[in-house]
Amino acid sequence: MYQNIASSPIFRGLTESGIGELLGSTPHSIRSYSKGQTIAQRGDEVKNLCIVVEGSVKGEMVDFSGKILKIEEMHAPMPIAHAFLFGENNRFPVDVIALEDCKILYIPKPEFLRLMQRDSLVLSNYLNSISNRAQFLSNKLWFLSFKTIKEKIAHYLLNLSKSETRTTLVLPKSHQELAEFFGVTRPALARVLAEMQEEGIIHLNRREITILNRSKLLEMIR
Amino acid sequence: MYQNIASSPIFRGLTESGIGELLGSTPHSIRSYSKGQTIAQRGDEVKNLCIVVEGSVKGEMVDFSGKILKIEEMHAPMPIAHAFLFGENNRFPVDVIALEDCKILYIPKPEFLRLMQRDSLVLSNYLNSISNRAQFLSNKLWFLSFKTIKEKIAHYLLNLSKSETRTTLVLPKSHQELAEFFGVTRPALARVLAEMQEEGIIHLNRREITILNRSKLLEMIR
Repeated sequence: MYQNIASSPIFRGLTESGIGELLGSTPHSIRSYSKGQTIAQRGDEVKNLCIVVEGSVKGEMVDFSGKILKIEEMHAPMPIAHAFLFGENNRFPVDVIALEDCKILYIPKPEFLRLMQRDSLVLSNYLNSISNRAQFLSNKLWFLSFKTIKEKIAHYLLNLSKSETRTTLVLPKSHQELAEFFGVTRPALARVLAEMQEEGIIHLNRREITILNRSKLLEMIR
Repeated sequence: MYQNIASSPIFRGLTESGIGELLGSTPHSIRSYSKGQTIAQRGDEVKNLCIVVEGSVKGEMVDFSGKILKIEEMHAPMPIAHAFLFGENNRFPVDVIALEDCKILYIPKPEFLRLMQRDSLVLSNYLNSISNRAQFLSNKLWFLSFKTIKEKIAHYLLNLSKSETRTTLVLPKSHQELAEFFGVTRPALARVLAEMQEEGIIHLNRREITILNRSKLLEMIR
């Protein structure tokens, strides 16, 4: 159990015995859920730090027309809705459902606050974790402001290459992840990348991309 | 000086003398900038908690075509880029320029970490503050996924009204703020709201909106 928790973003860097000690002096609970069971409903107050310690859960949303939208999956040892534990609107943004039989670790908010004050590693981990979330969202919003897939790709590649001298890049995301990040389908992304290769703007080799014509890339976003 | 800091989201709830004591034992610096001066450049590492203690600054971005985009203004006593102090990409997301003569309080990251461990109010304030940012961004992303202004308004009103019995709502944002939140112009928003009133879906009275026809509102997003 502690082994799993030790690889969670919140407890990363602590030893298993260190975690045992911390949790030994911190009131917490572990609850089991069976596949399909509702763990939290959208709008419920987030009163605990919740970490999936076994199995996996999904976040979903029922829109006003009754259609169910799956938002994301969280597998052990990831936290659930951890950017919604504090703040003015500390409520679950989605329904949380067990994807398979699973166990969730709950640490009540006041206890978790004390834990962060006692242990600077847990504090840094949690701060890094919610800041990463804010940075991811901020970045994603910035990319959504570009209308076409071509514009998104051009901005993304220019951002990655930064200086004019670096022309060969290794994508830090898979094509699937990139498509999700841009909010487009994988085939649509692949089509535009292929077009750009035919036009001699880039050369593709799996995750490696070489910029052949930087000025054409700049033209695409003007 | 401490009076201004006491109303900052990070030090809210502390007395002026309490802040004096905290800062007295925390290494920090205050630097003055004249109007137009660059305070930080996009991509610079964020090494300090930065709070505008006098005057105001703007965040701007130069896009690849050389066009300058103003992103936002921060007035005293607001923090600057505070959701970028931690996390994997702890770099200024924008250039920060003095809008007028101003003073910035800098607390180095390790000192600020220690300060949060010593003072639970500062810790809660900072956690609330960056969580609010993540929640605002997450909410904004959700609204950007709706294509038309009509869809955005319908979702927004249905979200606000929640239950079917509450039909008169007071908007928590001004029309200007709502337009910015939706990423549309104020006249465009006003036009669609007026259309919806003419169609008998809503009745407008400044910030008060009455939902007259809920099923038509639901139709708009189907």
